[in-house]
Amino acid sequence: MNKTILIQNALIVTVNPQMEIIKGDILVSGKRIITIAEHIDPPADEIFDAEGYIVTPGFVQTHIHLCQVLFRNLADDLSLLDWLKKKIWPFEAAHSEDSIRISARLGIAELFLSGTTTIMDMGTVRHQDTIFEELAKTGMRAVAGKTMMDFGERPAGLQETTAESIDASLKLLDRWHGFDEGRLQYAFAPRFALSCSEDLLRKTADLASEHGVLYHTHASENIDEAELIRQRFGVSNIQLFDKIGAADGNLCLAHCVWTDSADRQLLKEKDIKVLHCPSANLKLGSGIAPIPDYLDQGLTVSLGADGAPCNNNLNIFQEMRLAALIQKPLAGAQSMPAEQVFKMGTINGARTLGLEKEIGSIEPGKRADLTFIKINQVHAIPFDNIYSKLVYSAQSADVEHVMVDGKWVVRSRALQTIDETALPDAVHKQIQTFHI
Amino acid sequence: MNKTILIQNALIVTVNPQMEIIKGDILVSGKRIITIAEHIDPPADEIFDAEGYIVTPGFVQTHIHLCQVLFRNLADDLSLLDWLKKKIWPFEAAHSEDSIRISARLGIAELFLSGTTTIMDMGTVRHQDTIFEELAKTGMRAVAGKTMMDFGERPAGLQETTAESIDASLKLLDRWHGFDEGRLQYAFAPRFALSCSEDLLRKTADLASEHGVLYHTHASENIDEAELIRQRFGVSNIQLFDKIGAADGNLCLAHCVWTDSADRQLLKEKDIKVLHCPSANLKLGSGIAPIPDYLDQGLTVSLGADGAPCNNNLNIFQEMRLAALIQKPLAGAQSMPAEQVFKMGTINGARTLGLEKEIGSIEPGKRADLTFIKINQVHAIPFDNIYSKLVYSAQSADVEHVMVDGKWVVRSRALQTIDETALPDAVHKQIQTFHI
Repeated sequence: MNKTILIQNALIVTVNPQMEIIKGDILVSGKRIITIAEHIDPPADEIFDAEGYIVTPGFVQTHIHLCQVLFRNLADDLSLLDWLKKKIWPFEAAHSEDSIRISARLGIAELFLSGTTTIMDMGTVRHQDTIFEELAKTGMRAVAGKTMMDFGERPAGLQETTAESIDASLKLLDRWHGFDEGRLQYAFAPRFALSCSEDLLRKTADLASEHGVLYHTHASENIDEAELIRQRFGVSNIQLFDKIGAADGNLCLAHCVWTDSADRQLLKEKDIKVLHCPSANLKLGSGIAPIPDYLDQGLTVSLGADGAPCNNNLNIFQEMRLAALIQKPLAGAQSMPAEQVFKMGTINGARTLGLEKEIGSIEPGKRADLTFIKINQVHAIPFDNIYSKLVYSAQSADVEHVMVDGKWVVRSRALQTIDETALPDAVHKQIQTFHI
Repeated sequence: MNKTILIQNALIVTVNPQMEIIKGDILVSGKRIITIAEHIDPPADEIFDAEGYIVTPGFVQTHIHLCQVLFRNLADDLSLLDWLKKKIWPFEAAHSEDSIRISARLGIAELFLSGTTTIMDMGTVRHQDTIFEELAKTGMRAVAGKTMMDFGERPAGLQETTAESIDASLKLLDRWHGFDEGRLQYAFAPRFALSCSEDLLRKTADLASEHGVLYHTHASENIDEAELIRQRFGVSNIQLFDKIGAADGNLCLAHCVWTDSADRQLLKEKDIKVLHCPSANLKLGSGIAPIPDYLDQGLTVSLGADGAPCNNNLNIFQEMRLAALIQKPLAGAQSMPAEQVFKMGTINGARTLGLEKEIGSIEPGKRADLTFIKINQVHAIPFDNIYSKLVYSAQSADVEHVMVDGKWVVRSRALQTIDETALPDAVHKQIQTFHI
């Protein structure tokens, strides 16, 4: 028998197709939401009084680098290519299994405590099993894959051949795709075109298609990167993915800051997913992605904090707020209304990952991934439009309880699957081992 | 005899001229800091163990509208002039003494809980005594003044003649300037040129000079506002202040987004202070102020959250983070290093208010305005450069204790001078009285 949990008296932001807001109850059985109604009669195995809380779908961030969390606050004031070459690649190359484990755990701790329950992660060249193990143990929902980089300048610790890269990816896919009734899924993750041979990019596209999994990479983040790709391949970064046969609804492209009208047409035609990372785009000086255009065209745009060293948080509230604010000087104050941005952090993220029937909204039959947000914080009252409150004034620390698959992962701001008290010392100990 | 407090084992971010970071102790006596050292021997009336905390100068926000806090989350997606005419002025005009009191109290509660200990406030046309009463009672340090608006389109509740506006300002100056050994000070606060007669702007400049107080107003926030001012006065907004005799080191101009090279030259020559409000500039679609240019020229630039309805918080951490991030796509990833931004939120704010000998850094003889920030939060570790941690990854809820003039105003996140539990109901009750 599944355990049942009856959540009572919540202010429920459903994000269902009617965008209903319901003051009422949610019945959870096992991993799934069974009923949502103004009143649901007990009994249930657990009764949870959610008076004073807004309950939202667990947030979805579609572009995260768990392996970089350990390098938070250690790589400021650099643009993308310098940031990678001088800091991030040497750091990643120096990772041990232990340091990757702590990095992932630290990231998951922060993500849970700020209400994110699903991520797509761009992993690491080596030790990717360790990231999956942490995702498995902590209860995070994730689509993840090892970073693939078989080409170009990179430290020895990140070098691999095309065959090694593909072989390692396939083994990981075999081990982890579908874990825990689908909570963990695999995605192929070539780093970006500059770090990959055309052969790798092409073979990976075929394999993603063959296995029905996502193809997760970076594209058109930085103007210099975009130009280098055009020089090497003779086409734009977005066109390149079409040329190698990867351009379809399973292609997930982080950034897409530098696109022209042909690129945008292709994004639309092929239903390519755009992973928007506003903090990272600003911090690395990359630019402001033309998100209002993408949304007007009907593209699926979701949000991600990217890596901690280019943010320096993994906080969906900051990403939502910034996604709205940064467009207004150019696209007008009326652009990016809060409700639209809130969808980017929830249902659009689910749609990006092909999980829109499972997560991203609070509806009967969906997974019980829920975030409980305090309603009466002095920094977020009063409110009329609840999306304005959630996008512009709510803070990560307003998240009080979080559930994934019907299991509490945060309760009264205490992590249930991670020993938070042990993290600072472990983080300090691991970062001491790096000499970069 | 003054009460003494010995703060031990803190990580002290002094913001002194050498920008020293000291692991050690702070001795406070009465309202002032007496000693800072690696070790200070007891006794003291109170011993406070600050192990695990970063202690920073209390943050200074130089542009706030306490009377607007009640309208948080109620005025999204509008550009400046529409936002004022359709929402903010009707709201402000409908304020009662009771509603202003709750609005100010709510704002001060949020400011304290996010570590801000000094504000410059642009007040309200009527009931300004109420704002001063709340500032007096709660222990906030403030430079404040009634909003002056004797010209142009505005609701009946905000109308006043030139003589009434000046008379009311002088009475308030007489009552409040210098209150509590200088904790409260008065500033003349003409709203902006479009709401003021040239006569009012000119007379106020003379009076500010005569009384040695600040002249606080908005300027060149929005491109349409700037153009209307040029049409009416025949000069740019910045030049107008020179023309009417207000351009000196006591002139504090919020925004300065739309300035040309002649304006910038004038800002520099006259030592005019720029109050930068990055969130508000984005949310109202106003633009991105050329802050790196201003800093390169040696201007004093400080930070403010502006009004809650155009932000929608009053959170210095968000303003610091955003002040850094938004410049990087245009001015380069290396622009706005975290240390420089941290100064904008502390010592530059003090300098703007003419209080650089009293606040803005942790130095012997200065007022004991201190903010205690948790060091080991999972979203903000690890760190090497402490300013990177404070500007990019710290959150408002990391503020655990706050002191103004040697008195605790926040202790273990509990407000000491405001009944936080009563605020939500009071806010709800007051906002119900508005029908806009």
